[in-house]
Amino acid sequence: MTTNTAESISLERSKASFPIHEMEVFINGQMYVSKRNKVLKLLRAEPHIFDQKDTYFMSRTQKLEKSLSQEKRILELLSTDIPVIYMILDWPSPFELSRLMFMPTIEQQGTEEQKKAFLEPAQKYEIIGCYAQTEMGHGSNIRSLETTATFVEETDELEINSPTLTATKWWIGSLGMVSTHACLMTQLYVKGKHYGLFPVIVPIRSLKDHRPLPGVMVGDIGPKMGYNTMDNGFLRFNKVRVPRFNLLQKYIQVSRDGTVTRLSSADPRITYGTMVTARAGIVNDMGKKLAKAVTIAIRYTSVRRQFKKEGEPNAPETPVLDYDIVQYRLVPLLAKNYAMISISHEFMSEYAKTVSLIEQGDFSKLKEMHAISCGLKRWSSETTIYGIDTCRHASGGHGYSMFSGFNDLFTTVYPNIIWEGDNYVLAKQTAMYLVKAAHALQSNAALENNDSTLMIKKFFNSRQSYPWSGGASVKEFASNQLALMDLLGCKAVFLVKNLSEKIHSQGQNWEDSSIQSQHVATAHSEYIICLYFYRHTSKLPTNSPLRAILDVLFNITALSFILRNTGELYALPQESSLSRKQIIGLEEEYIKSIKAARKQAVPLVDAFGIPDEGLNSSLGKYDGNVYEDLMERALSEPLNAGSSGHNQLRTELFNNYIGPVLSNNSKSGSL
Amino acid sequence: MTTNTAESISLERSKASFPIHEMEVFINGQMYVSKRNKVLKLLRAEPHIFDQKDTYFMSRTQKLEKSLSQEKRILELLSTDIPVIYMILDWPSPFELSRLMFMPTIEQQGTEEQKKAFLEPAQKYEIIGCYAQTEMGHGSNIRSLETTATFVEETDELEINSPTLTATKWWIGSLGMVSTHACLMTQLYVKGKHYGLFPVIVPIRSLKDHRPLPGVMVGDIGPKMGYNTMDNGFLRFNKVRVPRFNLLQKYIQVSRDGTVTRLSSADPRITYGTMVTARAGIVNDMGKKLAKAVTIAIRYTSVRRQFKKEGEPNAPETPVLDYDIVQYRLVPLLAKNYAMISISHEFMSEYAKTVSLIEQGDFSKLKEMHAISCGLKRWSSETTIYGIDTCRHASGGHGYSMFSGFNDLFTTVYPNIIWEGDNYVLAKQTAMYLVKAAHALQSNAALENNDSTLMIKKFFNSRQSYPWSGGASVKEFASNQLALMDLLGCKAVFLVKNLSEKIHSQGQNWEDSSIQSQHVATAHSEYIICLYFYRHTSKLPTNSPLRAILDVLFNITALSFILRNTGELYALPQESSLSRKQIIGLEEEYIKSIKAARKQAVPLVDAFGIPDEGLNSSLGKYDGNVYEDLMERALSEPLNAGSSGHNQLRTELFNNYIGPVLSNNSKSGSL
Repeated sequence: MTTNTAESISLERSKASFPIHEMEVFINGQMYVSKRNKVLKLLRAEPHIFDQKDTYFMSRTQKLEKSLSQEKRILELLSTDIPVIYMILDWPSPFELSRLMFMPTIEQQGTEEQKKAFLEPAQKYEIIGCYAQTEMGHGSNIRSLETTATFVEETDELEINSPTLTATKWWIGSLGMVSTHACLMTQLYVKGKHYGLFPVIVPIRSLKDHRPLPGVMVGDIGPKMGYNTMDNGFLRFNKVRVPRFNLLQKYIQVSRDGTVTRLSSADPRITYGTMVTARAGIVNDMGKKLAKAVTIAIRYTSVRRQFKKEGEPNAPETPVLDYDIVQYRLVPLLAKNYAMISISHEFMSEYAKTVSLIEQGDFSKLKEMHAISCGLKRWSSETTIYGIDTCRHASGGHGYSMFSGFNDLFTTVYPNIIWEGDNYVLAKQTAMYLVKAAHALQSNAALENNDSTLMIKKFFNSRQSYPWSGGASVKEFASNQLALMDLLGCKAVFLVKNLSEKIHSQGQNWEDSSIQSQHVATAHSEYIICLYFYRHTSKLPTNSPLRAILDVLFNITALSFILRNTGELYALPQESSLSRKQIIGLEEEYIKSIKAARKQAVPLVDAFGIPDEGLNSSLGKYDGNVYEDLMERALSEPLNAGSSGHNQLRTELFNNYIGPVLSNNSKSGSL
Repeated sequence: MTTNTAESISLERSKASFPIHEMEVFINGQMYVSKRNKVLKLLRAEPHIFDQKDTYFMSRTQKLEKSLSQEKRILELLSTDIPVIYMILDWPSPFELSRLMFMPTIEQQGTEEQKKAFLEPAQKYEIIGCYAQTEMGHGSNIRSLETTATFVEETDELEINSPTLTATKWWIGSLGMVSTHACLMTQLYVKGKHYGLFPVIVPIRSLKDHRPLPGVMVGDIGPKMGYNTMDNGFLRFNKVRVPRFNLLQKYIQVSRDGTVTRLSSADPRITYGTMVTARAGIVNDMGKKLAKAVTIAIRYTSVRRQFKKEGEPNAPETPVLDYDIVQYRLVPLLAKNYAMISISHEFMSEYAKTVSLIEQGDFSKLKEMHAISCGLKRWSSETTIYGIDTCRHASGGHGYSMFSGFNDLFTTVYPNIIWEGDNYVLAKQTAMYLVKAAHALQSNAALENNDSTLMIKKFFNSRQSYPWSGGASVKEFASNQLALMDLLGCKAVFLVKNLSEKIHSQGQNWEDSSIQSQHVATAHSEYIICLYFYRHTSKLPTNSPLRAILDVLFNITALSFILRNTGELYALPQESSLSRKQIIGLEEEYIKSIKAARKQAVPLVDAFGIPDEGLNSSLGKYDGNVYEDLMERALSEPLNAGSSGHNQLRTELFNNYIGPVLSNNSKSGSL
């Protein structure tokens, strides 16, 4: 006999030890909650356009068409909050890169005249643009890009050319199907001299019938693991001419007679700023994406029952979330998800301070922000992608069905470990900043004060006593948030110090330091995450009903970082080291905290506030009616259409392939 | 300027230190190599049926149709070696479960009369069957299955019924589209008495027109993450009658008047045997699947160039496989891949010995085989799935394209961590066997001799001296294969001993031991893998030109296991522990071995012998023409069809969605 799944989930909800709506506002912020409610109303009013249930049955072309029809309708309905609506629809829009890259580049690098010519029409969607940088053969190392723009003095034009196959622009979002214009990164040549990389606006498709313009070879790069409503495209030029005017002129100008003036060189610190903003956006997005998977898995494993407890033959089967191996995989993800969303708020507010300092000419905070953004982008994307995978696996067989909601989510989130700096490459950025700071400290050079340098200063010379020194009782310091942060800081600084020694005393070069850089960057991020998470929850009044469970989530997060690789703990130098008994004690505390949080797991995922439309999942249904929904979705599978499940398609497949096998083989003796 | 990729890969090949074909035969076995060559000829003769390039553009229905047409043709061409052909085509066949589950169950549990009635027609493909066990609400715990078969004395029939929604059979392979019959696991009731689970053969679709028979609700369960040419289906019965004869009668008979005779009860050891065979098959399959991903990633990263080495501005860019962080991720996978294929040969030969002992009535080897099979299935599936993911990530942006070949591979392999025993559940099986053996040893009870018990005996009482004792030089013991195995054995037994103490002295129950069980099972598997790998390579003559590189691969595998979690090394008891210096020394040796194997990486993947058809990948092309192939495939994307890349579909999408946005928004001022 099966226990009622809807009753099971109601029972879980009834155990909430905190007001769910209050938590929802705290974790998401009131502004986001309001916007989400607003766009949800729009979506629900037009299910024929916005309902995503049928997308699991669609081919790529059908998805593209549906997405284009939604984009068209959204532009009629809204001028702001478009990202919020796509957060719920949970797929990328083909017009996205015109908004996110084409327009901002013109904004930043165009003259007023150029903005009038290209930005205004783009803002009005009279033209649609993409940002074409990456080439087939050149990704991370943009200096080796091959596309050229050569000044042609006779006609006052630039000639755009792709000299080789590998020069073909590739992976360019919004290019394969929709763009009419490209903001093209080119190697600029004037009178035989090479000036470096500059953006040129190039029309690529007719505004009348959308056909490629002469000399332009453009198309879609084909299907991807996911992200298939985005039309990533390719673009190749055979000596195409554009007016000289189309070269964006903020940093360079070419005059009528080919005189080149570099007006100002782009402050590399501005570029840093753009990257920091992009990565902050990823951290925020990852928190919301992981929340979808965690919501689905927690809800499902709390209603999915399998096996009875030893010695309880008459009880109903046990919800799988009650098994320690399931809790052990899911609850720390839930805790880290709260951490991830919390730190994205804190990071944004730190970055806002940085920007206002920059406006006063003070760039001192920017470098740490950059180092932290690399680390948090790395951690949040990796945690989210492999967290979704953990949720899928913990949900057993049904997790593999598209109806689980995990699979499109996984494939769409996946490129976040690669873009905006591959995670493995980013680690070096963070490590370099920290090693430099440690070296400055050691050589008594000037060193600014910020969270990272203060951490280094505090733990670099480790003669002091620690909360865990002298075999201190684990029970005491394991619930002391500052002590846990000290342990993370101590571990991080030890790794920084080791690497700094290799680099500065043993002559190891950075190229051979990339494995160690991963460890350094991860340990630093873990310290910063706890620090930011701590700060965010500290903003609540001490008597807030949210505090108790948030403290448990903090402890789980910190302990999961501390225990991630106990080898790092054992390897700490004598004076800061823990005993084997203490390490085992921490592992026991960790399990205890997980068991405590498990009791609040369903209320905690409810507080993420993701509507059923955003989950698009049978397993994650708010009302717990998992099996009814699975059946309903299976019945809507096109293969099952028609009365009593037979239809034209089945008849054809039977007549062409199955039937002939059944009848032919009755004569064959070979099998 | 881009360096020629075809030249780069030839250069890699020219560095081979061993004869590639000899390695190919050693690692795959001559029989497999011959079969592969045979079926490859068949595939190449009929590209219009067997070429898989176009599958990346197909909808699920198109894939199903292509797969059915291939199955039909394959049955005309072959009666054996069908699995080998599917290994190259790299997707499951919809008829597969009739061969793998329906026929074997009747073979094992049917009478001669029943074999004549059901098995013979299935062998001739006059009927197609599936094995219907799992229900929507019941997977691992088969005792709680709800489908009933009730004896109806009046008409001498069994009435088949699905009493609830959750009783619906779900996930059943070959059911959604093709099966005419089901071998259905039912709770048998005779005269009000419940007898337990027994299989009944139930016709479900008309042999004439394939429509569902009366009372049968059957269909496809919808799209999955992958495996979409398999028609996993659902099946529900509303009081459907079949003759009493259809109950498979080997273990139970119901007479005309309802007298029930249990003829023999199924020896649970036979069931163990079936599971061991199935898991051995998975290990073998995983080795071949991982080899595809490793081949693609190694070939691509050896021709993909990015950035120049510090201080070498005039050199061409560096192949990314020369970066340590890329090697560090890919080369250990290559080594483990060799280990995985090697151990599958060894395991098969151990299991053959076990079967021949069983035939003499000696079941003593079976339990260890079962424990090992659980562990190796767990390790091989996890290593392969996340290994494919590592290969994809190491290949950068192009890894995300379907043309990389990683993505269909990943989604198809994925369910192996769930089926034939979920990996997390299997760990307990292995741990229970080992703890029981350790307890027997401690209580001086009888204990059979086999690889696992000998390991326990050797390391349980750890007063002896070890190759690493007394601060022995790492350089010496890190290249001593027996010493590395001792270290792995020592670590595994320490974990077994800890768990045994918890269970037998501290009253911990198995339900609360599942986290520790994971560690125990993993450590044991790692020991066994090295032991089997060692045995397999030891079969080569000592002067074989293959030995040197295989020794390097062994060392990488063993060291990667030893260093996976150094916390476990530090936690070893005093007398068997390593010093911090030794552990760091092992890490350095590990990196050195990786650098050594990198030089042979391309020849080593060539020796897997996977044809381009089996890779279906631009990045993995044997000839190194990666970019040419990417472009060719992009041009064949249906969205790009037509002259100069414009076509009917694009015109429609432009007219319906893009065009209206471009012209409407020019009037709107809201944006």
